Amino acid sequence: MFPKNAWYVACTPDEIAEKPLGRQVCGEKMVFYRGAEGRVAALEDFCPHRGAPLSLGFVEDGKLICGYHGLAMGCSGHTESMPGQRVRGFPAIRKFAVEERYGFIWVWPGNAAEADPALIHHLEWADNPDWAYGGGLYHIQCDYRLMIDNLMDLTHETYVHASSIGQKEIDEAAPKTRVEGDEVITERHMENVMAPPFWRMALRGNGLADDVPVDRWQICRFTPPSHVLIEVGVAHAGHGGYHAPAQHKASSIVVDFITPETETSIWYFWGMARNFQPQDAALTATIREGQGKIFGEDLEMLERQQQNLLLHPQRQLLKLNIDAGGVQSRRILERLCEAEQQSADALIASA
Amino acid sequence: MFPKNAWYVACTPDEIAEKPLGRQVCGEKMVFYRGAEGRVAALEDFCPHRGAPLSLGFVEDGKLICGYHGLAMGCSGHTESMPGQRVRGFPAIRKFAVEERYGFIWVWPGNAAEADPALIHHLEWADNPDWAYGGGLYHIQCDYRLMIDNLMDLTHETYVHASSIGQKEIDEAAPKTRVEGDEVITERHMENVMAPPFWRMALRGNGLADDVPVDRWQICRFTPPSHVLIEVGVAHAGHGGYHAPAQHKASSIVVDFITPETETSIWYFWGMARNFQPQDAALTATIREGQGKIFGEDLEMLERQQQNLLLHPQRQLLKLNIDAGGVQSRRILERLCEAEQQSADALIASA
Amino acid sequence: MFPKNAWYVACTPDEIAEKPLGRQVCGEKMVFYRGAEGRVAALEDFCPHRGAPLSLGFVEDGKLICGYHGLAMGCSGHTESMPGQRVRGFPAIRKFAVEERYGFIWVWPGNAAEADPALIHHLEWADNPDWAYGGGLYHIQCDYRLMIDNLMDLTHETYVHASSIGQKEIDEAAPKTRVEGDEVITERHMENVMAPPFWRMALRGNGLADDVPVDRWQICRFTPPSHVLIEVGVAHAGHGGYHAPAQHKASSIVVDFITPETETSIWYFWGMARNFQPQDAALTATIREGQGKIFGEDLEMLERQQQNLLLHPQRQLLKLNIDAGGVQSRRILERLCEAEQQSADALIASA
Repeated sequence: MFPKNAWYVACTPDEIAEKPLGRQVCGEKMVFYRGAEGRVAALEDFCPHRGAPLSLGFVEDGKLICGYHGLAMGCSGHTESMPGQRVRGFPAIRKFAVEERYGFIWVWPGNAAEADPALIHHLEWADNPDWAYGGGLYHIQCDYRLMIDNLMDLTHETYVHASSIGQKEIDEAAPKTRVEGDEVITERHMENVMAPPFWRMALRGNGLADDVPVDRWQICRFTPPSHVLIEVGVAHAGHGGYHAPAQHKASSIVVDFITPETETSIWYFWGMARNFQPQDAALTATIREGQGKIFGEDLEMLERQQQNLLLHPQRQLLKLNIDAGGVQSRRILERLCEAEQQSADALIASA
Repeated sequence: MFPKNAWYVACTPDEIAEKPLGRQVCGEKMVFYRGAEGRVAALEDFCPHRGAPLSLGFVEDGKLICGYHGLAMGCSGHTESMPGQRVRGFPAIRKFAVEERYGFIWVWPGNAAEADPALIHHLEWADNPDWAYGGGLYHIQCDYRLMIDNLMDLTHETYVHASSIGQKEIDEAAPKTRVEGDEVITERHMENVMAPPFWRMALRGNGLADDVPVDRWQICRFTPPSHVLIEVGVAHAGHGGYHAPAQHKASSIVVDFITPETETSIWYFWGMARNFQPQDAALTATIREGQGKIFGEDLEMLERQQQNLLLHPQRQLLKLNIDAGGVQSRRILERLCEAEQQSADALIASA
Repeated sequence: MFPKNAWYVACTPDEIAEKPLGRQVCGEKMVFYRGAEGRVAALEDFCPHRGAPLSLGFVEDGKLICGYHGLAMGCSGHTESMPGQRVRGFPAIRKFAVEERYGFIWVWPGNAAEADPALIHHLEWADNPDWAYGGGLYHIQCDYRLMIDNLMDLTHETYVHASSIGQKEIDEAAPKTRVEGDEVITERHMENVMAPPFWRMALRGNGLADDVPVDRWQICRFTPPSHVLIEVGVAHAGHGGYHAPAQHKASSIVVDFITPETETSIWYFWGMARNFQPQDAALTATIREGQGKIFGEDLEMLERQQQNLLLHPQRQLLKLNIDAGGVQSRRILERLCEAEQQSADALIASA
C-alpha cells in the first residue's frame, strides 16, 4: 500500500557513478544509469531479448548495453541497435520518469505522463552554501509506514537511542500534532533541560558551551509519499528556544526519505542538513557517523516489529496521542492510494 | 502436533540473567524475564502499543519496559504505566504459566488455569548435593517426535556415535519396551563387554579400571510431553550390573528435555546428571564437553531425516521392535492431544 | 520440464571415492555409491526404516549401511539385513539405472526398464590417449534450458567473457543453425582475426605463434537431454581454418553436461577435451583454471535472468537468428517430453 504516482528518492549519484544500478522501487525492478549527456535514466530492469537484467550491463555512448548479448537500449525504453539485428520490431520496455535534483535521483514509479518535476519536494537547504549535508542509506525489512510512525513519534528516542539523543524529558513533553493540507506536523518543545550527548557534541561543534541548560525542540513534518523532515535543535536556555538567534543555538534538519522496495521492505535514505559551520567537513563527517550509528539502532526494532505484525495481522494497535503523527500520515496515504485506485478504475471504465 | 497443556523446559536461568529472552515455544512467541522479587515471568512477546517485541526491552522495578516507547508491562500481562498515558483501557497481552525449578524455567503454553506446578516432572537428582549436573542447548530443525524416537532407540549409538558410546553389542542386545500409565520404558542390558571410549573415561573419572569387561545398561524413560531420562552406566562385570554396588560402577542419567518451537523445530536441552565424584567440577566439564560433541552428531541426521519426511508425507515408516519406545511414546502423545482437542470442542459446544 | 527417460551425468568418480553422495537429479533425491565389486549404484536417498538419508551412511561389503540404525541396503533397493531384524517384508526403495563410462557416472532418472546403456552419448575423445580432459562442476540456480540457450548462442562471449574468449568479430559473424534428427548444430566461422587471450594462451601451449591472424570457429552441437559439445579452435589464417592440418591450429571440444536438479536449478559439468599436447598435465591445469574462471562469469547472469523470468512468466522473449540454436533445442525437448507424457498416459489407459 503506497502511492505510485509520486516522487521517491531512488538513489544517490555516487551509486550510479561506476556502473548501472539495479534497484526495486515500489515493487518495480528498475535500472538507473546516466545516459546521453550524463542525464539520469530509469528503465525496467529487463532486456527485451532474453530477460537478462540490464543492470548487469554497461553504458556506451549514452546507451545501456545489455551485458549478455549486447542489445543497446535507449533511454526511452526502445532498443536502439543490436549487433547483426534489425531492432525496429523489438518490444519496448517500461521507462520511468526520473529527475536528478538536490543531490538525489528521484523516480516516479507510476504513470510517467503525470510525473511533473515541479512536484518534487522543495529542499530549501540543498544547493545552498550556508548549509552542509551528510547522510547514508539503510536497507530495512519493514513496511515503509512503520518507519514513518517511528519518525513521527520521537518518544522512542528515550528508549532506542538512550545513550545519544534520548532523554527522559522527551517523554514528559507531550507532542502536538496538526494537519495542514497534505502535511502533518508534530512538534515538541522541552525547556531548561540538559542536552544529551549528541547535542552536547553539536553545541561544541558550533563553539557553544555544552554544560548549561538548553531549550530543545523537535518539529517533524511528514509530506507524501514518505518524506519526514525534522527540525531539531537546542538553544542556550532563555534565548527564545526555536526562535533564538543563531549565535545561541545548534540546530539542523533531520532528513528522511523512505522508499518502499516491496510491501515489507524499504530503502531508507537518512541524513542531516545543518546551517552552522557548513564549511567544516570534519564536523559533517562526525555528525554523519554519529547519526548513522543512532539510526542503525532502529533497524532491529523495526524488523522485529514487522515480523510480529505479520504474525498477527488482525490485531488492532493502539493510537495514542504520541502516535497522532503517524496516524495522520497514514490517513493521507490512504486517501492518496484510494484516489489513485479511482483514477485507475475510471480509466478502465472509460476504455 | 504437541500437547499445549503441559510443562516444557523453556530456558535456563543464565539465559535471562542479563536481559529478557524472546523464545518461541509450541508455536507461541514468548518473552521470559525476572519480574518483581526476581520471580520469573512469561508473556506474549508483543507490546500492545505498536506490536514491538517486548524481549527487546529491559526490566525496571520488576516491570518489563518496552524498548520502543517505554510502555511498562506487568507480569500479569496488563500494562502498568506508560509515560504521559492513561493505560487503564490498554488491552492485556497473554500471560503464560511459568515456574522455576530444578535449575530450569518451565512454561505451560496452553491454558494457564490448568497449570498445576505439582505436575512438573520430579527430578530426584536436582538440588541434591550427591549429584552433579552439566548440560547444554541445541536448536534443531526437526519435529520433536523425531528426537523422542532417537532417544528411545539407542541402537543408533552404534552408527551415529561409533567413536564414543557406540558398540556392536548394542545392536545385538534386543531392547524390551513396556508402558506404565503415561510412561514408556525401553531397556537394554549388555553383559561382559568392553566399555566404549566415553565409558572408559567415566570409569577412570570414578577411579575404576577401564580395561576390564563390564556390564552395561540403558534404561530410557519417556514421560509426556517430551522428557526422556535415560539411566546409563557400566559396572565391572560380575558385580550385578545395574544393581552393582556403587564402588564397582560408573552410572548417570542422560537428561533430555525436548521443547517444540514449531511443528518442525525444537529447543533441545540435553545434559547428564551423575552421582559419582559430584564435587569434581573438572569432570563435570569434561563430561559436558564429550556429551555436547556426541549429541551434536545427531543434528544433521535428524534435520535431513525431517527434510526427507516432509518430501514424502504419505510414506509409511517401519515400526520394528527397536522402534517400540518411540511408537508407544507417540501413542501417548496422540491420546493427550486428542483429549485436549475434545476439551476444547466441549468448551465451544457449551458456550 | 525435462525428459526423465534419458542419460544424465550425475557425478564424477571422485565424488563417490570416499563416501556415498546424496544428489538430486531431475527432482529425484538419489544416493550414489560403489557397491559390490566397485560397481556404481544409485538408489532413492531414503531408508525404508525411518526415512533417514542413506547418503549419510557408509559402504560395507558392497552394501550401503544406513548411518542411523544400520540397515544394510542392497544395490537392487531391497534391504539385505539389519541387526536383530528379519528384513524380508521391508519395502523396497527405488533403484535407478546407472552406468560409469568415459570418466562420468550417468543416471537415468525415469523408467529403469528403458535404460539402455547403448544410448549414452558417445564421446570419441574419452578413453583416448591422444586427448586430454579437464573439467569441473558448478551448481547454478536456473532452468537447465537457460544454460542450453547460453551455450547454443556464443555471441554472449563478447559481453560476458570480454577479457578472455570474447571478441567483437563474434557479433559480426552470423551463426548458421541446422537440425539433424535430434541434434541441433549452430556454427560460426571468423576469418583473419586476432585471437583473444584464451586462444593466444592455447596457441602458445601448442607451440604456435600467438601474434598472427587466425581463422576461428565454434561448432555447437546440442543432443538430448542436455549435452552441448562445442568444437572450438583457431588456426593460423590461410591454412584452411577448421580443416587446417594439426600443425597450424589449436583446437578443442568444450564439454557441457547440464543436469537438472529441480525445475530451476542445475548441476553443470563443464570441461575441455583437447588433442594437442595431451600429455602436458600443467597445460591441462592451466586450461581448466582459465575455463573455470570464464564459465564462472555466466553464473550471476543466468541466476538473475532466471529471477527476472520467474517474475514475468507471461512475457514473450525474442527469438532472433542468434537464438535459433536454443529455440531448436527446446523444440526437441518439448517433443521428447510430450512423447514421455503420451507413453505414461497410454500406460494408464491400458491398465
